[in-house]
Amino acid sequence: MSGVDTVGGVPGVRAGDHHDSWRVQALKQVSYEVRLRDDVFGLDRTDLLEAGESGFGSRRRFVVVDSAVNALYGARIREYFTHHGIDHAMLVMQVAETVKDFDSVARIVAEMDAFGLARRREPMIVIGGGVLMDVAGLVASLYRRGTPFLRVPTTLVGLIDAGVGAKTGVNFNGHKNRLGTYAPADLTLLDRRFLATLDRRHVSNGMAEMLKIALIKDAALFDLLERSGRLLLDERFQGHTPAGDQAATLALRAATQGMLEELGPNLWEGRLERCVDYGHTFSPTVEMRALPSLLHGEAVCVDMALTTVMAYRRGLLDETQRDRILRLMAELELPTWHPLLNPAVLECALRDTVRHRDDQQRLPLPVGIGGVTFVNDVTVDELAAAAAMQRRLCEDLAYAQPLRA
Amino acid sequence: MSGVDTVGGVPGVRAGDHHDSWRVQALKQVSYEVRLRDDVFGLDRTDLLEAGESGFGSRRRFVVVDSAVNALYGARIREYFTHHGIDHAMLVMQVAETVKDFDSVARIVAEMDAFGLARRREPMIVIGGGVLMDVAGLVASLYRRGTPFLRVPTTLVGLIDAGVGAKTGVNFNGHKNRLGTYAPADLTLLDRRFLATLDRRHVSNGMAEMLKIALIKDAALFDLLERSGRLLLDERFQGHTPAGDQAATLALRAATQGMLEELGPNLWEGRLERCVDYGHTFSPTVEMRALPSLLHGEAVCVDMALTTVMAYRRGLLDETQRDRILRLMAELELPTWHPLLNPAVLECALRDTVRHRDDQQRLPLPVGIGGVTFVNDVTVDELAAAAAMQRRLCEDLAYAQPLRA
Ligand SMILES: NC(=O)c1ccc[n+]([C@@H]2O[C@H](COP(=O)([O-])OP(=O)(O)OC[C@H]3O[C@@H](n4cnc5c(N)ncnc54)[C@H](O)[C@@H]3O)[C@@H](O)[C@H]2O)c1
Ligand SMILES: NC(=O)c1ccc[n+]([C@@H]2O[C@H](COP(=O)([O-])OP(=O)(O)OC[C@H]3O[C@@H](n4cnc5c(N)ncnc54)[C@H](O)[C@@H]3O)[C@@H](O)[C@H]2O)c1
Repeated sequence: MSGVDTVGGVPGVRAGDHHDSWRVQALKQVSYEVRLRDDVFGLDRTDLLEAGESGFGSRRRFVVVDSAVNALYGARIREYFTHHGIDHAMLVMQVAETVKDFDSVARIVAEMDAFGLARRREPMIVIGGGVLMDVAGLVASLYRRGTPFLRVPTTLVGLIDAGVGAKTGVNFNGHKNRLGTYAPADLTLLDRRFLATLDRRHVSNGMAEMLKIALIKDAALFDLLERSGRLLLDERFQGHTPAGDQAATLALRAATQGMLEELGPNLWEGRLERCVDYGHTFSPTVEMRALPSLLHGEAVCVDMALTTVMAYRRGLLDETQRDRILRLMAELELPTWHPLLNPAVLECALRDTVRHRDDQQRLPLPVGIGGVTFVNDVTVDELAAAAAMQRRLCEDLAYAQPLRA
Repeated sequence: MSGVDTVGGVPGVRAGDHHDSWRVQALKQVSYEVRLRDDVFGLDRTDLLEAGESGFGSRRRFVVVDSAVNALYGARIREYFTHHGIDHAMLVMQVAETVKDFDSVARIVAEMDAFGLARRREPMIVIGGGVLMDVAGLVASLYRRGTPFLRVPTTLVGLIDAGVGAKTGVNFNGHKNRLGTYAPADLTLLDRRFLATLDRRHVSNGMAEMLKIALIKDAALFDLLERSGRLLLDERFQGHTPAGDQAATLALRAATQGMLEELGPNLWEGRLERCVDYGHTFSPTVEMRALPSLLHGEAVCVDMALTTVMAYRRGLLDETQRDRILRLMAELELPTWHPLLNPAVLECALRDTVRHRDDQQRLPLPVGIGGVTFVNDVTVDELAAAAAMQRRLCEDLAYAQPLRA
């Protein structure tokens, strides 16, 4: 019974000197793939079926699909699974930021129970935008304490952001993503073909996260967006012209690569100074309070416009750079101002973000275009002054987009 | 923008040959401590305050406490934090297996929001039984995708089982722990003094999990329980006599050590053949269907009695061993039979467990006392025959405990 003080080395379980304590050490290895692949549900495509070392060993699949995607692509998706002899159930979910909540989690779980999913060999397949991926990803990480899953993002936010990292989540108590986990899909397939049917506003919305990567670390991507952003928006990344096709390929690769460079080495956010948090300091509160009038990327853009002006006021950007940034936002049809950017809301947003960043501001600010720094000395006065200047600039220079209802 | 194919080695992010895929690899290190410590809230004790490398750097603490524990120890716990100058909020939770659900999760989260918990430097402290630890542990792992926490289990199940591993969870859709995570507390303090006020039935209930460890891997612990189990139950592990004190120390150490040896090297259950799953094949379904009449350990014991008889019928145990086991269960005032052990329920329970074990039975059966084997060929007929024998034995030999309402 006793006598066993040490079991293995590290990792392992080590008993203390007086037989009255134990330390457990363990290493968890995580490995996942993100793959660019057009026409994922083409009948000759096998990426989805071959995922996993051994294709997961079972030919049963539980599929969750966004309702808008189902309306457009449902028949094709069903045909794909049927053609390949996959015994599947397909749950159609109507999701939105306003119902990104535990009820949606519960609905998916109930259907998984009904389907009778095996624990490890039958991955869930999630097809939809960022909201569905975040919710279904949370389900996958909670169901029996972890079920593998595969993602097929169908929005631009999904392709370049929500689909490439490890974060899942739902809103709670008025707070954005208050509950969630880190659980990447085993495989994510980025298929830009889905963007063909996306609302123009949602394409624009996704370009905000692309712009974020450009601003904090990729000046070449910024140049590309200045040159071809409008074309990408018009063509919805479908490459109807050779120039548009080349720009779409470059922009999607660069955005994904840039995002993964930041997320991969900091998968569990051990470091809380994250440059990909740029635009995500005030936006979580603004997005939730404006719900449903601002989309996620739009709220991020409003935050980036504010912090661009802050950076300018601190001498981190010159006037030309500031104006190039604001003008590009406007050109991508993104809002650069919102009435919620008032001192009371900004103070409240900052307070919650400070808690989220473990009692420090760790606020990323752009340095020129393509650089970043972190500051910890922001005051409400500075925020108020910057927001006032931001408002003036947007009005005077007609950067402002018409506010959407 | 491109050019960067590889970021770091492994772990890191590796781009595929054609710039159209990426593989992310990352290692997560987990380290936690379990410490035997009497009188945790003695004013001179500092274990709880010094937890973490740097004591977590903040003197604010959010405390969640079981309502029964609060009634008995609340004043003492408050005095402890006040004495040490800790700014704290204490949430009193009335929990039970029947409300081990998402509503309980939501209640804790709302209070954490109200308290304004910082993300990493203000660990939550959970004081209570297995139910509260499972629920609050789930909250800790979900809140902002992970908040550190410390555990002070106050039941025997908590001390030797729920408090030492990494599993959190809530019931859902009639299924035991259907939603959960792996998230160990940074530090767990095992204080047997709390058992002084525990219902006799709950002490007995905890001894079922102790018996499990004895049966599958620790014959010496089995002997100890045969010799002194009844005394431990009578004294509630408080050591009122020298013999009782020695037995309590030995039994708690052995059970904790045995549990950690099994859990530590398999923290995320990469291996699904787990000998600590002994007694947990049929019991999840039986426990949920009998709710609230059977406690967790009682359901586990009924399962162990069944599988003891199965092992006997397969020649893995002789008659003497079989009867020693059943007699010890009875002596510890644990049930050895339940009417829900009928073929229909057993078949249904086996089906769900097979899914949980990824499409195989992986059923642990005792081999003698202190040994274990895994089988995959159990049929409903065998279950029915074993259950019939179990029932007869329990009636004939008067092993059966009066069923509690
Ligand atoms: N986990 C992460 O790392 C991460 C990163 C960024 C954003 N997010 C989250 O993502 C969410 C935003 O995602 P989103 O912008 O994709 O929103 P969304 O999922 O709500 O999708 C937007 C709309 O497009 C529809 N749609 C989806 N695909 C379509 C298609 N191919 N054709 C036509 N319509 C389609 C949807 O039904 C929806 O109405 C936010 O909740 C945000 O917090 C998460
Ligand atoms: N996570 C794990 O690895 C793990 C392992 C084993 C069991 N569990 C779970 O633990 C739960 C059972 O735990 P439990 O048996 O502690 O039940 P419990 O938490 O319901 O506690 C039992 C009762 O004792 C009361 N109580 C607690 N401490 C007391 C004290 N010191 N004095 C007087 N009364 C006290 C509680 O209010 C409750 O009424 C089950 O849900 C089971 O699934 C989890």
